[in-house]
Amino acid sequence: MKTILILSGGLDSTVLAAKLKAEGCELKCLTVDYGQRHAREVAAAEKVCAALGVEHKVVRLHGLRELMAGSSQTDPSVPVPHGHYAEDSMKKTVVPNRNALLLSAAFAWAFSCQADTVAYAAHSGDHAVYPDCREEFCAPFAQAMKNADWHVAELERPFLELTKAQVVAEGAALGAEALMALSYSCYEGRAEHCGLCGTCVERKEAFSLAGVADPTEYEA
Amino acid sequence: MKTILILSGGLDSTVLAAKLKAEGCELKCLTVDYGQRHAREVAAAEKVCAALGVEHKVVRLHGLRELMAGSSQTDPSVPVPHGHYAEDSMKKTVVPNRNALLLSAAFAWAFSCQADTVAYAAHSGDHAVYPDCREEFCAPFAQAMKNADWHVAELERPFLELTKAQVVAEGAALGAEALMALSYSCYEGRAEHCGLCGTCVERKEAFSLAGVADPTEYEA
Repeated sequence: MKTILILSGGLDSTVLAAKLKAEGCELKCLTVDYGQRHAREVAAAEKVCAALGVEHKVVRLHGLRELMAGSSQTDPSVPVPHGHYAEDSMKKTVVPNRNALLLSAAFAWAFSCQADTVAYAAHSGDHAVYPDCREEFCAPFAQAMKNADWHVAELERPFLELTKAQVVAEGAALGAEALMALSYSCYEGRAEHCGLCGTCVERKEAFSLAGVADPTEYEA
Repeated sequence: MKTILILSGGLDSTVLAAKLKAEGCELKCLTVDYGQRHAREVAAAEKVCAALGVEHKVVRLHGLRELMAGSSQTDPSVPVPHGHYAEDSMKKTVVPNRNALLLSAAFAWAFSCQADTVAYAAHSGDHAVYPDCREEFCAPFAQAMKNADWHVAELERPFLELTKAQVVAEGAALGAEALMALSYSCYEGRAEHCGLCGTCVERKEAFSLAGVADPTEYEA
């Protein structure tokens, strides 16, 4: 099985990389640098792939920023909101059409190299904030991708029904604690995780609920 | 009605720009430079927008080329095939997942600026060669886009049932002969249209079948 994994360098996609590698996939990881606020996630993705010994491509698509006004993740004039991930204020972190762009890029690679599947790590906790993590988006998108090329590749979303705490538990069950420690989640993008932004709050909570020791150094 | 039009600078999207402008749309045109063999199409798109007096964004996404091996349009090691557009050899000109990438970028802009629709100029003659011009791709993709953001934008494909000759006839009916003359179709990308590649053959044939004088200078 040849699989293209969308690897952001965050916790969820890092655990999914460990899982697919453990299952014996021929794994190729894609990180899209679409002009996020910071490069630390990309650096984390590189470390994860080096640790797993899998192929990694980083594709720079900074031109997309021009189309993405209004998101705290691509527009420096919008401050990063603090608080719990599920709050309404977190909608400021929505990057317009991010998943369609990431998935389309991954499928382009899958069609070029005749991969069997494209995998990504959307989980159930994403749905409340991100419209493009919902089944209403994913199901028709996956169907469109089956007809986008003469080669057929399938979309795989193994974590769709899991909470983030269950993703962390899966990582621990795979013995991927050291790999999870390499991942980076913070929206602020400083050397240490801030501990206050939506993804930091969610990351802390996930380790705590899973009963797994959190290897992350937080500022707060 | 606020509309984002995907404008390649080729004949079909140029006629669609004329049509939407004539219908009174607030038109914003998007040209994606994904590392096509040449920049002449992009320059043609600029001229078309200047002539119509509409907003134009050119977004450079050259990083995509790394994901698109094997197409004559993005991989310099693959020669441009000559002959009729509908021949099997034209499959070499398929750019992997091109439409999903272009449409996803256009919808990102539509979500950012709260546009009502995204328009593109796929026509019936495209289907034989390009899997991602087929209804089996377009219908589920449009459905996915309705659920990709909290803002809803619709996909418009007004030329889907038309032949390219009918698109040219539409351009002539709109009085857009001068605009069509600004458009550029050739896969070779030299100053004049080569007259031999698939799109040149198709362009000539469309003007001829429509009974519209072809303003294009061909080398052959």
